[in-house]
Parts: sequence; structure tokens; C-alpha cells
Amino acid sequence: MTAERDHRLIDGKAVQARILAELREEVMQAAKTRPVGRLVSISIGPSPEIEVYVRGQARGAAAAGIPFDQQIWPAEITLEDCKRRIVELNDSPDVLGIILQRPVPSHIHVRSLQSAIHPLKDVEGMNPASIGNIVYNDVALAPCTAAAAVELVKETGLDLKGLEVVMIGHSEIVGKPAAFLLMAEGATVTVCHHMTRSVAMHSRRADVVVVAVGKPHLIGPDMIKPGAAVIDIGINQITDADGSVRIVGDVDTEKVLNVAGWITPVPGGVGPVTVAMLIRNAMTAHKRQIAAGWLGG
Amino acid sequence: MTAERDHRLIDGKAVQARILAELREEVMQAAKTRPVGRLVSISIGPSPEIEVYVRGQARGAAAAGIPFDQQIWPAEITLEDCKRRIVELNDSPDVLGIILQRPVPSHIHVRSLQSAIHPLKDVEGMNPASIGNIVYNDVALAPCTAAAAVELVKETGLDLKGLEVVMIGHSEIVGKPAAFLLMAEGATVTVCHHMTRSVAMHSRRADVVVVAVGKPHLIGPDMIKPGAAVIDIGINQITDADGSVRIVGDVDTEKVLNVAGWITPVPGGVGPVTVAMLIRNAMTAHKRQIAAGWLGG
Repeated sequence: MTAERDHRLIDGKAVQARILAELREEVMQAAKTRPVGRLVSISIGPSPEIEVYVRGQARGAAAAGIPFDQQIWPAEITLEDCKRRIVELNDSPDVLGIILQRPVPSHIHVRSLQSAIHPLKDVEGMNPASIGNIVYNDVALAPCTAAAAVELVKETGLDLKGLEVVMIGHSEIVGKPAAFLLMAEGATVTVCHHMTRSVAMHSRRADVVVVAVGKPHLIGPDMIKPGAAVIDIGINQITDADGSVRIVGDVDTEKVLNVAGWITPVPGGVGPVTVAMLIRNAMTAHKRQIAAGWLGG
Repeated sequence: MTAERDHRLIDGKAVQARILAELREEVMQAAKTRPVGRLVSISIGPSPEIEVYVRGQARGAAAAGIPFDQQIWPAEITLEDCKRRIVELNDSPDVLGIILQRPVPSHIHVRSLQSAIHPLKDVEGMNPASIGNIVYNDVALAPCTAAAAVELVKETGLDLKGLEVVMIGHSEIVGKPAAFLLMAEGATVTVCHHMTRSVAMHSRRADVVVVAVGKPHLIGPDMIKPGAAVIDIGINQITDADGSVRIVGDVDTEKVLNVAGWITPVPGGVGPVTVAMLIRNAMTAHKRQIAAGWLGG
């Protein structure tokens, strides 16, 4: 496929590989004083749709030299039991960070559980306190997908200061944190969503369009300013006429390629970089845990 | 002054009086089961510039029937002593909420101190966890000034859903939380700041312009769309040619009045409503403390 080699397509796997190689170096340096602990991935109940993500995270951790412990807790576990187990993981010095895979069974209140993860072990950046720290420009443990979007904007070489960015989608775990991270970098950010009168009016004037809506091919070439960067966070499964299933983003990549200056493909764009951000958060958590005196001398 | 009676000027004192009267009713109702505790205002060291704000808060609390306890801690107090005292206030069931007046002496780390205030007593909405909850659309204890800006937009009668709002200024305690609160109401929000290439390009297309920069008369009539609402959060002290001192906002009110559909004066606009939001937060805190089982049966 020639499009794969188009220089306008940002190669998320290459970005991931570069970041993980840097982190591997850090992990080895850190091990001289205090080896990094293990990442604990928690899935609750069987959930095949999660597995591909968990595998990606496990591979990312392995590439950086960080132990990865995949736990699958019983589907019928109570919220109280989950919290008790999480507190144990919080207190365990050999646990570097906790990853709570979503979705969880309906009887588990996911935000309540996320809040139980100590901010210093919240490598996904999901605790409300972690999100609050973003507002205060303390962006150390940012939500991984939002951080990946910012990383990919930087990959274009564009100077984020004063850049006109339109964020389409205002979800709690992607759109809003991404907007704040971009503001922290100096961008002028507009957040559009389902109540916005004209998304195109905004997206057409933007230097960078970041999309996280979950609608296949929502963004066509008429919505993008020539030369703009397009960061596609959407992951949608669609079934073609011949019955075959494939993953596409929120952007009509083939067509937008003719207009955009840069575009992230789906798959192979934001996804791999999200894993790299998770591992980067893990190393940041390690350093913060040491600074907080958690890991002894 | 005829401008004071202009129907385009939103009367913040009237809005304050209405909200405080509603809250007084709530306070009396609440007292039948469990009287509300006292608000504790903490000033550290002598700071005459704070006194006008503290007086305004004390009057607001009195109007709602909530006890107000103004404490002035010694200027040389250590951060550790401050935290110890705050923990005592957190634990005291007759303390409804804690207000930390700023500025504080330079040896006191203000964010560290704000973080020590328990989220259920954080009536100013300043704790990072409180800010994080805003991102999650849990806007119960929002920063008061930001909440006042939203309240004043509502006062125009405009439907916030889909409204094009431009927030000028991206401070942690006003601009960013206000942006989030406005998003939560369905507005399409653009946040401009000192790195924005053309603030006027944004402000001229906005249905609502909210300004929190701290520059006298920054916003002139050429920056406002005819009929737009202008919410002026700025409080600036200027000295006139004759040596007299007066308070002005970030908007050139007299001139913008000829263009805008609504405008909040300074003083008498956002300020009084900010006090009302503080007292509203206090009542919300009371209910949450009961719900959390803090106040016994």
C-alpha cells in the first residue's frame, strides 16, 4: 500500500519505538540505584476486546524492560473487594503502577475504582486529582491518549506556541485533557462537540485538528485547511460490503491525505504512541515514588 | 450615573441578593435537621488589600445566615503549622468550610496549603481534586469566580448549548475552570491567552466573551460582535490624571456598551456574584458532608 509510505502519514510505531528505546535506557540507569517495580494490569472478568490493548501494553513494557503483570479478577468480584486489592497494590513497594482496563462489569463503578488508585501509581493519569493537576500545568501523569495526541503534534515540528488547534470531542478522558495539555504548550484551543453549531467553521481555520469522537470517517477533506495537521484518535470497527471487518479512525484518511500536511493513520498512529506514553508515565511515577520517600534509600 | 441604569449592564449585586435570599431559605431548612457550621476565613499575616474581599464574604455569609469566623494567622507561621491547623479544621464537625485568603507570605506554598483542605470543606473549589472533578463534569464545588462567570452568562437568558464562547485568559483558578464549566453547559469554548496570534479574530465571532487577564481596558468595542455578552472578570486599580484611584475591569465598559448586548460592570458585576457562589458552595459542602456521614445523624 503506497499510502503507508506517504511522508504525510505520521508513523506512530516509529515514534513509539524511539520513545521506548529512550525509556529502556532510563530504566537501566534507574536500576543501578533502585530497580523499577512491575506494572499491574487489572482486567475484571473475561473481555476479549481488551486483550489486544493489554498485549500492546505488555509488549511496550517489555521493550522498555519493565515487568508487566497481567491480572484477571473474577467478573463477580465486588467493588469493595476491588478497592481492597487496589489498596494492597498501592501499598506494595514492588508495584510501580496500576492499569485498570476498561470496560469493567456494570456493577463496578469505574470512577470510584480509579479514584482508589494512588496518584503516584496512577500511570494512566485517570485519577481526578491527576486530571486536576493538569489544569495546574503539572502534566507529569497525563491521560495517555491525550498525551499521545500532543506528542504526535510535536512530531510534525510545528511550534505549539500560538498554534490554532481545534479539538473535536470533549470526553473526560481524551478531549478535555488533550485540550488542557495543548493549552499548557501554548496553543490556542477550541473544543468542539455534538452541540457545536458548525464544527467545520472551526476545523477549517485550524492549524491542527485533533479528533476523538468515535464516528468512522466523520472528518472529510472539506473540513481541513490545506497543510494542517490531523491527529486521529478514533478507533472504529467497520464491516465492509464483502463482510470483512477493519479498524478505521474518525478521519477519512485517504481523502484527507490530499489536503492535510500531516495525518496520523488508524491503526498505527495514536495507538502505539499511547502505549509509549503509558510507559513514560510509569518511569515518571518511579521517580516521583522515590522523591516521595516510598522506595527507601 | 445613567450608565448604571442601562439595561445592558448586568447588575451583579441584584444577582447576588437573589441567590443569597434563596440560600438563606436553604440554610433555615437545613437547620431543622442539622445547623450548618461556620465558614472559617484564614488570612496569613496582615494584608489590607484582602480586607475588602473578606468583608464582602462575611456580609454574604451573614445574608445567608451562615456563621463566619475570620482568623488572622501570624505572618511568621510555618507551612507545617498551617497544615496542622487546617487538618484540625478539616476534622472539626462545626467547621462548614475553609477559605484561604490570598496572597499568603512568600514562605507559604499556597498550592500545598490548598491541597491540605479536604475536598468536602474546599468551598473555594481550589483543591486539585476539586478541579479534576470539574473535568469529570462533577461541578458541585467549582472555583467561585469561574462559577460566577457562568452564572452571569445564564443571567442573559442565552441558551448555553452550542453558544460560541471565547474565554480570554487561561489562569488555573479562573480561565481554565471557567472554560470547563462552560463546556459542561454545552458551549463551544475557545481559550485565548498571551500566545494567541489574534485574540480579536476569536472575540469578534463570539456570542459571549469572558475576560480574565488583569489589563485595564484591554477589550475595546472593535473586539466585540454586536449584541454579544461580555463578562468582565478583571479587577484593576488605576490612577486618574487628577490622582484619584478607581477600580476598572479588563473591558472598556463605556465604549463596549455601545456594541455589546450585555456587559458586567466592574465593580458590581462578577465580584458580588463570586461571593454568592462561595456561599452556594458552602451549602453544597454541608449537604455532601451529611451524605458522607461526617455530621452524625
